[in-house]
Amino acid sequence: MLFNMRGEATDEEINHIVARIKECGYEAHLIRGKERTVIGVVGNSGRHRSELEALSSAPGVEDIVKISHPFKLSARSMRPEGSQIDLGRGVIVGGKEVIVAAGPCAVESREQIHDVAARVSKAGAKLLRGGAFKPRTSPYSFQGMGEDGLKLLREAADKNDLLVVTEVMDPSQIEVMLPYVDVMQVGARNMQNYHLLRALGETQKAVLLKRGMSATIEELLLSAEYIMAGGNYKVILCERGIRTFDTYLRNTLDIAAIPVIKGLSHLPIFADPSHGTGRRDKVAPMARAAVAAGADGLIIEVHPDPERALSDGVQSLYPDQFAHLMNEIRAIAPAVGRTIAETRFPVEASR
Amino acid sequence: MLFNMRGEATDEEINHIVARIKECGYEAHLIRGKERTVIGVVGNSGRHRSELEALSSAPGVEDIVKISHPFKLSARSMRPEGSQIDLGRGVIVGGKEVIVAAGPCAVESREQIHDVAARVSKAGAKLLRGGAFKPRTSPYSFQGMGEDGLKLLREAADKNDLLVVTEVMDPSQIEVMLPYVDVMQVGARNMQNYHLLRALGETQKAVLLKRGMSATIEELLLSAEYIMAGGNYKVILCERGIRTFDTYLRNTLDIAAIPVIKGLSHLPIFADPSHGTGRRDKVAPMARAAVAAGADGLIIEVHPDPERALSDGVQSLYPDQFAHLMNEIRAIAPAVGRTIAETRFPVEASR
Amino acid sequence: MLFNMRGEATDEEINHIVARIKECGYEAHLIRGKERTVIGVVGNSGRHRSELEALSSAPGVEDIVKISHPFKLSARSMRPEGSQIDLGRGVIVGGKEVIVAAGPCAVESREQIHDVAARVSKAGAKLLRGGAFKPRTSPYSFQGMGEDGLKLLREAADKNDLLVVTEVMDPSQIEVMLPYVDVMQVGARNMQNYHLLRALGETQKAVLLKRGMSATIEELLLSAEYIMAGGNYKVILCERGIRTFDTYLRNTLDIAAIPVIKGLSHLPIFADPSHGTGRRDKVAPMARAAVAAGADGLIIEVHPDPERALSDGVQSLYPDQFAHLMNEIRAIAPAVGRTIAETRFPVEASR
Amino acid sequence: MLFNMRGEATDEEINHIVARIKECGYEAHLIRGKERTVIGVVGNSGRHRSELEALSSAPGVEDIVKISHPFKLSARSMRPEGSQIDLGRGVIVGGKEVIVAAGPCAVESREQIHDVAARVSKAGAKLLRGGAFKPRTSPYSFQGMGEDGLKLLREAADKNDLLVVTEVMDPSQIEVMLPYVDVMQVGARNMQNYHLLRALGETQKAVLLKRGMSATIEELLLSAEYIMAGGNYKVILCERGIRTFDTYLRNTLDIAAIPVIKGLSHLPIFADPSHGTGRRDKVAPMARAAVAAGADGLIIEVHPDPERALSDGVQSLYPDQFAHLMNEIRAIAPAVGRTIAETRFPVEASR
Repeated sequence: MLFNMRGEATDEEINHIVARIKECGYEAHLIRGKERTVIGVVGNSGRHRSELEALSSAPGVEDIVKISHPFKLSARSMRPEGSQIDLGRGVIVGGKEVIVAAGPCAVESREQIHDVAARVSKAGAKLLRGGAFKPRTSPYSFQGMGEDGLKLLREAADKNDLLVVTEVMDPSQIEVMLPYVDVMQVGARNMQNYHLLRALGETQKAVLLKRGMSATIEELLLSAEYIMAGGNYKVILCERGIRTFDTYLRNTLDIAAIPVIKGLSHLPIFADPSHGTGRRDKVAPMARAAVAAGADGLIIEVHPDPERALSDGVQSLYPDQFAHLMNEIRAIAPAVGRTIAETRFPVEASR
Repeated sequence: MLFNMRGEATDEEINHIVARIKECGYEAHLIRGKERTVIGVVGNSGRHRSELEALSSAPGVEDIVKISHPFKLSARSMRPEGSQIDLGRGVIVGGKEVIVAAGPCAVESREQIHDVAARVSKAGAKLLRGGAFKPRTSPYSFQGMGEDGLKLLREAADKNDLLVVTEVMDPSQIEVMLPYVDVMQVGARNMQNYHLLRALGETQKAVLLKRGMSATIEELLLSAEYIMAGGNYKVILCERGIRTFDTYLRNTLDIAAIPVIKGLSHLPIFADPSHGTGRRDKVAPMARAAVAAGADGLIIEVHPDPERALSDGVQSLYPDQFAHLMNEIRAIAPAVGRTIAETRFPVEASR
Repeated sequence: MLFNMRGEATDEEINHIVARIKECGYEAHLIRGKERTVIGVVGNSGRHRSELEALSSAPGVEDIVKISHPFKLSARSMRPEGSQIDLGRGVIVGGKEVIVAAGPCAVESREQIHDVAARVSKAGAKLLRGGAFKPRTSPYSFQGMGEDGLKLLREAADKNDLLVVTEVMDPSQIEVMLPYVDVMQVGARNMQNYHLLRALGETQKAVLLKRGMSATIEELLLSAEYIMAGGNYKVILCERGIRTFDTYLRNTLDIAAIPVIKGLSHLPIFADPSHGTGRRDKVAPMARAAVAAGADGLIIEVHPDPERALSDGVQSLYPDQFAHLMNEIRAIAPAVGRTIAETRFPVEASR
Repeated sequence: MLFNMRGEATDEEINHIVARIKECGYEAHLIRGKERTVIGVVGNSGRHRSELEALSSAPGVEDIVKISHPFKLSARSMRPEGSQIDLGRGVIVGGKEVIVAAGPCAVESREQIHDVAARVSKAGAKLLRGGAFKPRTSPYSFQGMGEDGLKLLREAADKNDLLVVTEVMDPSQIEVMLPYVDVMQVGARNMQNYHLLRALGETQKAVLLKRGMSATIEELLLSAEYIMAGGNYKVILCERGIRTFDTYLRNTLDIAAIPVIKGLSHLPIFADPSHGTGRRDKVAPMARAAVAAGADGLIIEVHPDPERALSDGVQSLYPDQFAHLMNEIRAIAPAVGRTIAETRFPVEASR
């Protein structure tokens, strides 16, 4: 941490900061420039750090500059070669293969989930996504099938050699979910629900942590840190669109976050072009862009009959659009040194 | 809801939308303009509404336009005269008096909380704020004193004729908080934690609901709706700053949200100039601006020794700065037809 | 400037930066912390500065931190007591009086501009605003009356003891404007039109410089710097709303920019609640908030018949709404140590 | 256009709007829903349209909804097959080939520009970029070589079979530029400099129009409209990053704007990953993403010695990094049905 003193800061003001730095157990290094003085803080981090931060409003201080990243376990330097997360059944996230999760926004019926599972599996998906407990902006919207939905997910996944990823909204749901689920998804709205993050840190289940709509990358990594601090290192990050002034699409998918996170952290990073755009016809170009930028995986909404979906139909692909998209990214992946799973058997033209 | 069809939409595409609207149980009204056709949806709201929304990606549809607000219980039309929320001890939010809550970010010790309670009470505050359970971006930061903090808060408030407002982070904390607390605060990061909102809807405790950093006003009102749908109508909204490209201050306090919310909803609206700016020297001008714009209350961080605060010291006022600010807003309130409580006895010049 | 080196930066990488700093004519000061090294740059600023900045992508560099503000002439330290700008006829911007400019978006006819000038003058305005050359987002919208509009503005202002402020869009318009205008307004879209700024710097006419929709405060001050570097120090800044994710109103009026600019610069700062909100019924609360936050002036759109205005009717006040607003801010100004001009003679209730 | 009336709007208020619509020369169609009334406006667009818009603040009106796009000449429907812009020497923008422009931020010397021109040409670039007149945020930064720079650009381009693209900042520069330049670039800060746009509309020179930092896509297309309205249809759009809350990189490159613009307009769209990220190591992944998303071209900063560049060195590629990137996108282009020019002769490994 550095204190950037105002040009007109008095010696008394500078000395006050130096004294407080020492009281907090750090050393102070002064750089006296022509226009202003900068005070560097050196020493063991963590002790009374909040007191140091409080000094940023002290007289004579222009601002403070944080030098160290506040995240540690998720930092690239902890594992420079990158993390690989083994989900079982040979599915490894963060390796050479780009892993694709696909399925409906919500589980609606046995028929629906089996239908979609069969089709996305054929096309090369490795995980089946589908919500059983749905976070909805309005209390008057469909809230999900609950545990019945979990059972159907598991059943459909097993039948089609897929793993299951689904959203957990509250610590109280973890227990019921564990037997059915391979990856616990934390939604964007819950990225800073610290009770939930801590509870997931106490499991050994892989977590797909979505970036909040207005979360910085540092905040995303700090949320990963909450999970990892509990001993669960199986964290997969997910860029799903940020909120900007541009409201033509639902969100602005921050593709650059992919290489940025690759630089800062060893954790794998997925992209969600479905929520990231909110429109079916923009999903494919953004999925291709994410792979080209280096994403480790994609999570995509697919529904057998999007016009009759109980939620997110507007952004769900038809199954054969999904199969087509898989072919496109299969062609792009080698350009960035990656692969995509082959289709399991010929995709039927069915729509 | 309206379907705005593309100029080049075919009759077949238009007919498909009309047919689907009828299948969903609504009437369709066509307006055929020179350049394009608009299809209005009329009828009972709510049934298969998500299916209608899914049609916005259908061929020939440019976009859909939502006409009705999705919030109902919180809408101004439900109570055109505005809500008044009686917190007890004669404190009514939403009336003529602008209510001020003040206190430290976190309860740190008996001495600290008693000291600050005495001083803010003298200056005219009606509620004592202070965190016992702290949501912190980093897992390595101070996380609060827990129930011991609640006890100290209650004790200090009672001694100084104040009510207590403190943050609840998880449904599991509600039970322990109820005996100590007059107003449950939902923090910005939890604004869309629906489990928490629903649990608060089942109590009869007043709730101070903070706007999320990137939440639209409609989303804030929908979160209020979650609480109210459970039967708890005692909801106080709070503008606390949004995230924008401008990072000179921690957040951009959206003062215009105050009159906007006044127009859309009957619920009272507070402003939090401490989190809304993140710097001590900007708190007073923004508190004045909020009152001038019509806020029903303020929530302000005050600490007896901000430089040694365990959190948020940078934005906490010294007690006599707070007393000075109270005098400033006492002069402004009449210009907007409001009042501020008198000082209880002369404020000591103490810093 | 400081170089924040990565934790894993090698000695070779650090030495490279030190060598380059010296080559560029500066001294390098190292602070070696536990986790990383910071290199401070000390010396005469300006020389080869861009080369230093280019090093921020060099191997081993995490990022660079700029310590000094890049603006100089506009910095508070140049004139700690604040600038007062004398516009003539006793109108001084930046003094005790809050100065109000009012009038229609565009001059439309002699009758219109005389009508509105008489009414805003009575209510206490000191400047008449009105566009003669209009920047319009669409080439198909009304583009203004040109020089005829300037003549009408001058005539109406003179008759009602007002000064004239109007927008200049291009250096080629300055010559024709000079005889008619007291304050040249630079619109938000032109805030970084450097040719225009430089040309205005060569005049001695006061300039009202509006903040761009996505300009940081530092960028606004750098644009002021372009004008001042030419020798024209009569610059009045103006906050007029920034673009954020929240699109309920046209813009988000950044009230906090007022105290922030007061801290960073000696230049006076106005607020434009008309463009800042885009809706008539939000103008008054935001005008009040701006005054309460310390604005030196306001610029407000007023039209005798907003429903028939050729532009911006949606946000224009009716003349008696304006008179009412003037009374409100007359009550607020003393609370912040300011005054507002008295009504010149009783305001007629006329709407 | 539609008027969305408030639920509580009176018949008188509704009738007023209907009457005003008719006065303005349009028909009014009412849709009376259960909760509210919507009034559709039908008829010839353009006449008194601003008066209609002014009604959005009238009593009883919730808001107005614009249905038609305000841009016409740039709309996809004008040329559903897409525009191809022939720049000469066989370079066609908007065809099967993805066109790459490359070169330094600013022309600094004959040696520099010849060196970089030779290298980017070999690697497959078709245009040479380089600034002669530089828009700089600070008046104290390097402002470009002026006409001498133009001559050097032309010379270096001709020698290496490249076309020239360079930025024009003011209408007064057009004349001097015409002989030297193949594509006139309008920078992000000038996207709404209407005098400049109009002046370019009167030439027949191709224009590369960059999106403003906070411009919506509709605004970008309206700026294109200013140029096209003058008769110059050779407009190439360019996404170069928008300003968001996330400041880790200089801008957020809005990759989704590429497919969105492809849907709305027939004009070709480039991406600028150099300004869009501001960091050398993020240029390649974002360039790949842009091609994968369907961009018609790229504009990339390349400098022979970025650490000694007079501007933008931090984001300039080394020549062999550029050659490597060209190879990467050469592998991606076929996956989206496109091609990239071959290297002209083997690229030397030179850095």
